[in-house]
Amino acid sequence: MKFFEDIVAGERMELGQHTFTAESIKAFARDFDPQPFHLDEAAASRSIYGALIASGWQTAAVWMRLMVEYQCREDDARRARGEPIAELGPSPGFRDLKWLRPVYAGDTIRYSTEVIGTRPSNSRPGWGLMSIRNSGVNQKGEPVISFVSTAFVERRKAAA
Amino acid sequence: MKFFEDIVAGERMELGQHTFTAESIKAFARDFDPQPFHLDEAAASRSIYGALIASGWQTAAVWMRLMVEYQCREDDARRARGEPIAELGPSPGFRDLKWLRPVYAGDTIRYSTEVIGTRPSNSRPGWGLMSIRNSGVNQKGEPVISFVSTAFVERRKAAA
Repeated sequence: MKFFEDIVAGERMELGQHTFTAESIKAFARDFDPQPFHLDEAAASRSIYGALIASGWQTAAVWMRLMVEYQCREDDARRARGEPIAELGPSPGFRDLKWLRPVYAGDTIRYSTEVIGTRPSNSRPGWGLMSIRNSGVNQKGEPVISFVSTAFVERRKAAA
Repeated sequence: MKFFEDIVAGERMELGQHTFTAESIKAFARDFDPQPFHLDEAAASRSIYGALIASGWQTAAVWMRLMVEYQCREDDARRARGEPIAELGPSPGFRDLKWLRPVYAGDTIRYSTEVIGTRPSNSRPGWGLMSIRNSGVNQKGEPVISFVSTAFVERRKAAA
């Protein structure tokens, strides 16, 4: 992770993409969202969606994985350059999560993140808060998910 | 699902409880949130959390499963009484999701939901919108998660 002082509003991160297979949609649904249109092609074809769709929570959880993997790659690159690595702290939560369109089996969602604001934390000395807007877009360029999340990020020792 | 007309603001649903085992925390983390404090007890003990904790997305996804199971039980009871069953439509999304405390391995979270508002849908004739506040509380009575979600619910044919 970058240190808080190096994070700039407007900065974009391209997190990568993920294809939602029918099998992964059904496996997630069995564990967390056992509704017919997430579990079974035939039932889904009779639903208002017309075909198998991913749980909205799976669409969100895949964002988390791509974000963690992105930060791991960035940290590896920092280590390779001999740079220090800041700690990413807890996330207090998110707001305004919108499922804008269904994610169908076979859809490939590309995720990106934009920093929309930063401020020093009042409650946790040594930490700052970063607000980011996260989005997922399908292979046709249509937005499918959008939400704003916040996370604590370590400040440089000198600045804290 | 109840029909839109039968849903009353202030109504509470007790969704049940779930114990987060270390194994389920690590399995979810491998798939969706591979951070050290979700994956490995030793690494977690050195983190700011001090012990293995569940991904916040797992805490949310378990709410979804308990909500779906609750609605299935309610629909079974309606069928047994010979009552009609309303369709639960898509959820446009969520707002103000707060992860208030970590969920540690072994914690048991009790989930409940309160209806905070209803209104007919302007965009989808035949449907209404229900807003609910969802909460999870651990075995010590401490809140760990809270969020507000909205979902479309079918209206009675005569009212639509």
